[in-house]
Amino acid sequence: MARIVVTVMLKPEILDPQGTAVRGALTRLGLTGVADVRQGKRFVIDLEGSLDADREALLTKLAGELLANPVIEDYSLQVEA
Amino acid sequence: MARIVVTVMLKPEILDPQGTAVRGALTRLGLTGVADVRQGKRFVIDLEGSLDADREALLTKLAGELLANPVIEDYSLQVEA
Repeated sequence: MARIVVTVMLKPEILDPQGTAVRGALTRLGLTGVADVRQGKRFVIDLEGSLDADREALLTKLAGELLANPVIEDYSLQVEA
Repeated sequence: MARIVVTVMLKPEILDPQGTAVRGALTRLGLTGVADVRQGKRFVIDLEGSLDADREALLTKLAGELLANPVIEDYSLQVEA
């Protein structure tokens, strides 16, 4: 069993209104010095068997096409087990 | 500057229709052996100055009240810098 975590975040130059709303709420609720908040997505993918090079290459490709919008989002893969 | 990453995932016993849709799409697009996909949220919080114990405790409390719905979601904090 292999576990891959795909993290998708808006590119730094793209405005993040959800993150800005969270920043405002954290400050209002008493947390001082909040400089920035960015909100993103996280996908935990469990694969049967081990992760060979072919499946990793396909998953990397699909992450960029299906899970992230490459125009506005960056993504990264992390193999956990 | 301190960076804290808050990860919010649905509890394992809660159905995740978004994750199931992603699992179906990955399989349809040719990835074999996808056992499970779970989708969650990720908040990257940048704080001015260093993270003292008071602010960390408040942030942990707020993560559980503002960023996660503790009835259906688990959350974790990770200090990155």
